[in-house]
Amino acid sequence: MRWQEEVIEKAKRAKKASLNAMNYTTYQKNKFLVALSANISQNERKILSANNKDVKNAIKNNYSSAFIDRLTLTYERISKILKSIEIVKGLPDPVGEKISEIIRPNGLKIEKIRTPIGVIGIIYESRPDVTVEASILCLKSGNCVILRGGKEAKHSNRMLVSLIKKSLVEAGLSEDMVNLISSGGRKAVRYLLSLNKYIDLIIPRGGESLIKTVVEESTIPVIKHYKGVCHTYVDRDVDMNMALNLCYNAKVHRPATCNAMETLLVHKDIASSFLPLMAKMFKEAKVEMRGCKRTLEILPDINEATEEDWSTEYLDLIISIKVVDSLDEAIEHINRYGTMHSEAIITNNREAVNKFFKEVDAAALFHNASTRFTDGGEFGMGAEIGISTDKIHARGPMGLVELTTYKYLIYGNGQIRQ
Amino acid sequence: MRWQEEVIEKAKRAKKASLNAMNYTTYQKNKFLVALSANISQNERKILSANNKDVKNAIKNNYSSAFIDRLTLTYERISKILKSIEIVKGLPDPVGEKISEIIRPNGLKIEKIRTPIGVIGIIYESRPDVTVEASILCLKSGNCVILRGGKEAKHSNRMLVSLIKKSLVEAGLSEDMVNLISSGGRKAVRYLLSLNKYIDLIIPRGGESLIKTVVEESTIPVIKHYKGVCHTYVDRDVDMNMALNLCYNAKVHRPATCNAMETLLVHKDIASSFLPLMAKMFKEAKVEMRGCKRTLEILPDINEATEEDWSTEYLDLIISIKVVDSLDEAIEHINRYGTMHSEAIITNNREAVNKFFKEVDAAALFHNASTRFTDGGEFGMGAEIGISTDKIHARGPMGLVELTTYKYLIYGNGQIRQ
Repeated sequence: MRWQEEVIEKAKRAKKASLNAMNYTTYQKNKFLVALSANISQNERKILSANNKDVKNAIKNNYSSAFIDRLTLTYERISKILKSIEIVKGLPDPVGEKISEIIRPNGLKIEKIRTPIGVIGIIYESRPDVTVEASILCLKSGNCVILRGGKEAKHSNRMLVSLIKKSLVEAGLSEDMVNLISSGGRKAVRYLLSLNKYIDLIIPRGGESLIKTVVEESTIPVIKHYKGVCHTYVDRDVDMNMALNLCYNAKVHRPATCNAMETLLVHKDIASSFLPLMAKMFKEAKVEMRGCKRTLEILPDINEATEEDWSTEYLDLIISIKVVDSLDEAIEHINRYGTMHSEAIITNNREAVNKFFKEVDAAALFHNASTRFTDGGEFGMGAEIGISTDKIHARGPMGLVELTTYKYLIYGNGQIRQ
Repeated sequence: MRWQEEVIEKAKRAKKASLNAMNYTTYQKNKFLVALSANISQNERKILSANNKDVKNAIKNNYSSAFIDRLTLTYERISKILKSIEIVKGLPDPVGEKISEIIRPNGLKIEKIRTPIGVIGIIYESRPDVTVEASILCLKSGNCVILRGGKEAKHSNRMLVSLIKKSLVEAGLSEDMVNLISSGGRKAVRYLLSLNKYIDLIIPRGGESLIKTVVEESTIPVIKHYKGVCHTYVDRDVDMNMALNLCYNAKVHRPATCNAMETLLVHKDIASSFLPLMAKMFKEAKVEMRGCKRTLEILPDINEATEEDWSTEYLDLIISIKVVDSLDEAIEHINRYGTMHSEAIITNNREAVNKFFKEVDAAALFHNASTRFTDGGEFGMGAEIGISTDKIHARGPMGLVELTTYKYLIYGNGQIRQ
């Protein structure tokens, strides 16, 4: 089985490289980023032509236009990749940071120091820009990376990974820091997920079935970047214009993102004044609305939402709307149907904010702001590898710091345990 | 299937309770600890008699004496449990701590606040003291807990959990914060590990086969408390007496613990002077020594170590000894055979320490101190739920802080994403 040898060989190489990579300096890692930027710029045409092979195959195989859009690289997308490299170069390197230092009564000095995690496996789908963006974040934080992209992007990924490897070598780093697994299909993924001796963390980025496979098969720790069924709750005491603007932004600005609003919850006391205005704006933006029974009394022209709607991430210009009796009902609904991603309350009542912030269990809670702000850049991290919907290790946007762990360094002068 | 209903019912109850438990005050949680202390004291005889049933069964079923020792409660062990409760009561409550606060250029204020994880499943073996000690740490940090102890301890565990529930109620907290699963055997464990909708984290504590099952079956994030194959490396430039004392302590003080030394590495330049003295001390303490070929040239009376020895956690008065050419060889050996737990270097050479601390990949690295210090109490955490051998979320001793996650609270005044 050639693919099996390929996978284990690459995992072993990455593990070995990771022991050196723990101690690469910021200067070395930034040198790599500079080289990568130059190599991508100088090979734009080659990258686009490799990508074109993938796109042609995808068209031939009747993939959806959304899929082909995610797969396609353009000069514009490449310049976005170059901008990401520039941003990551400018970010502070978290490795080596002293998190804490204590001296114990017995004289032991205990330092807690930030270190890279080691080897990170990224399992993703068709987007070749992820190949570069995930790699540079892992590498800048001193980690090695094993990339498993979709087979549909294999020509693009091979070209990009060859440029990353070239740049590593130019910067004097080990080219084994980056490894692309491209053969073996699902079997190779399953095998990869069993190699807990060599890989320290798996980050799956993709749709429901990919995440499900990874969670079920992996013996390696996983941080899920799962779906966002995000809510905005409009309380009874609000600034009407602000509420309309925030809800519009949360739904319409970029509906295909995980931090877009999927369900609007409205307090019953304000529903009859708020919903008709909101519906007018949504209608103009071609948003399909699906409402609960009480919403339909106010907006008789829209369809009724089914039970399934409340847990659906549309990723599209569709919204479900529910009128609630109280803040408590809103919180209950969110804790039941939400995915612990981003949840907003719009209100002028500070007590309601406090209650909402305390009782809703989610990574990011917003008061009078759009859920669209859940983002590494917007949170001041500079860039993100994704948004964790897990509670272990990292919650919400994951930047460089979230790609590290720590070790304890203990300095003694002969202490023994009594 | 009665057990299946039991497991899902308890998981659902714990999840529901966890939403309230996120916001319990320190006062309430300490009130519970006070009640628990009283209830355990007042029911010592009942606890011991329940435990006696388990012990009698275990004897009847021919369990090993080590197993029966772990299973057995005594007045002394109960007073240790009471002391743990007292310690945990005195620990600062990490929940609600503001980890950071920033104000973004657009005016959004982003607070990062420490919160409980939610529902934690503890899967362990025969020790009934774990039932109380794991529970109080989870509860003090605002988490709910599902306990799955060994069936051999079922009478003890039922008694202890009933006292915990009673104490929760007396403190005005939900008794659903603690749940014991005692039926269904392995099948129940497997089913529990699939309930990722209700359980946020699994902590397995136990031997190799338990950990392996959990890692392979769980779709819930797992933090392993796995074995410690810990090394001490004696460099060429050492204080001989200190080196002898530290190695003796690391091996002999409590050989059955995960932070005890299993392998001694000795620099070739010092081996012939150090090893005979060390061997004399070990012999007096009845430590069985197994050496590499070069060790055998110095200590001809001991047996040769096999390849398997280098990765064995003896948990006993046995040690493997290897002579190495250099610090590099020692580091390579540790990174190859170690379990990333606790590793020590004994040297007077500061450069050697720096290299060792940089290049060895483990949770705790010691300079001139015994590996036995890897412990929540010794690290100033007050108490620990165990020692993580993972790199994700928590590494090394896990105290209250490591049993928390965080959420972002974002305060706006109408900000929308451009």
